[in-house]
Amino acid sequence: MNFVDKLNTAVRKNSSLVCVGLDTSPELIPDGMNVLDFNKAIIDATADLVCVYKPNIAFYEAQGEKGLDTLHKTIKHIPKDIPVIVDAKRGDIGNTSAAYAKSLFDYMGADAVTVSPYLGFDSLEPFLKYKENGVIMLCRTSNKGAADFQSLLCEYDGKKRPLYEIVALKASQWNTNHNIGLVVGATYPEELKNIRIAHPDLPILIPGVGVQGGDLDLAVRYGIDTHNRGIMINSSRGIIYAGKGADFAKAARQAAQTLRDDINKCIDGLKK
Amino acid sequence: MNFVDKLNTAVRKNSSLVCVGLDTSPELIPDGMNVLDFNKAIIDATADLVCVYKPNIAFYEAQGEKGLDTLHKTIKHIPKDIPVIVDAKRGDIGNTSAAYAKSLFDYMGADAVTVSPYLGFDSLEPFLKYKENGVIMLCRTSNKGAADFQSLLCEYDGKKRPLYEIVALKASQWNTNHNIGLVVGATYPEELKNIRIAHPDLPILIPGVGVQGGDLDLAVRYGIDTHNRGIMINSSRGIIYAGKGADFAKAARQAAQTLRDDINKCIDGLKK
Repeated sequence: MNFVDKLNTAVRKNSSLVCVGLDTSPELIPDGMNVLDFNKAIIDATADLVCVYKPNIAFYEAQGEKGLDTLHKTIKHIPKDIPVIVDAKRGDIGNTSAAYAKSLFDYMGADAVTVSPYLGFDSLEPFLKYKENGVIMLCRTSNKGAADFQSLLCEYDGKKRPLYEIVALKASQWNTNHNIGLVVGATYPEELKNIRIAHPDLPILIPGVGVQGGDLDLAVRYGIDTHNRGIMINSSRGIIYAGKGADFAKAARQAAQTLRDDINKCIDGLKK
Repeated sequence: MNFVDKLNTAVRKNSSLVCVGLDTSPELIPDGMNVLDFNKAIIDATADLVCVYKPNIAFYEAQGEKGLDTLHKTIKHIPKDIPVIVDAKRGDIGNTSAAYAKSLFDYMGADAVTVSPYLGFDSLEPFLKYKENGVIMLCRTSNKGAADFQSLLCEYDGKKRPLYEIVALKASQWNTNHNIGLVVGATYPEELKNIRIAHPDLPILIPGVGVQGGDLDLAVRYGIDTHNRGIMINSSRGIIYAGKGADFAKAARQAAQTLRDDINKCIDGLKK
């Protein structure tokens, strides 16, 4: 089953468009606990409430080799019917991207990865060749600095368009294996709206609700596809650090459930 | 001593603008040898001929946790007076880039890293704050797909410029700690020329000679600064795999020496 089918199956089973970002820092978890046990507890507490998990590999690399071992074991602990996006934002020349794809898909066991488009098609091709795996391209990121380059007006096909729109156009053109998605931050709802209209079929990973301040209602309204899915609303810190003490897993479950229900209420509101 | 000073000291000491790319794949080294021993032999054979080493982390990540351990030990083996760029092409939102910076500078011991500019200033700031470390921004990469986005004509400051030129302009603006460099492929000599003219002081890492077919003479002619330095001419496969058998280290030394001498001949030719 390819990534998009696996994702849609999890969406249906758990009635959820929630992506939990497993961005775990050792200094932010309960005293005396290790990251793997923390992650396992979060996963056990939320696996029936989410459609996808997304560990950002940076937080594991920051712990050196043992951090990567923790990530590897965390991914193994995730139930087989919930897909895993490793947020890695990779992209390099062909033979190097092939090494990254091998590392993240074959070794680490990711169902999908995030990639950076700056180096162009041949840097993404080694990832795209893994037809069963998803490749989520950065398009309009959630951070303030996104505007530095992504909003530049570029000439393309006789028109002026912001760079991020051209990235989305290329993503659609390159999507011959139906395994591409986009990253569009909830912090830029108008951009999200434009992208969804232009690309009705691409799954969109939406970070930026929660700590970053993106509006959930607009993210759902503008991001959702005609099947009432097609978005993965990510929350990292808002879920995994919802509680600070011994009941952190319970608090995480509560936060995931609240986010899931809030998203579903937005969708119900749109149907009226 | 910051990265640029350390680099210039090594350039002077070894009369060399050669960067050796330690992109070691286990399947391409002599039978029965491990990557760490191979890398140590390459380093021992070339350390008096180069100005910088550049392992691409992808080749190590492809081997999982033990690959990162190998990279860590490889970096430790490099003589203290030769700087190390970890080619990682990272870039993420602020708190995540901070984790990458911690991983690559503090843990892995890199003097410099390569970064991808797509997410803008706040994604690079956590790296730039390490004043003693170098931050080499992708500008015009050596691969064919580079043109997909990097060559798009964008509006900036009332003029139309290709995206890569705007990246270079921003790099100069953001270089308050004097620790930024650029990546410009030897496969695009005209672009290299324009960038050097516009940015006389930025160090430029130049991949793409050797297997990728870039012209060495043009790379030196167009890339060099007014002090006859400011470029790092990278060769990876052309040096580390110069020999296939037991004499691989000797062959690597010969290849590094030839590249160093060829670069220096180009410089001498320019002086006439």
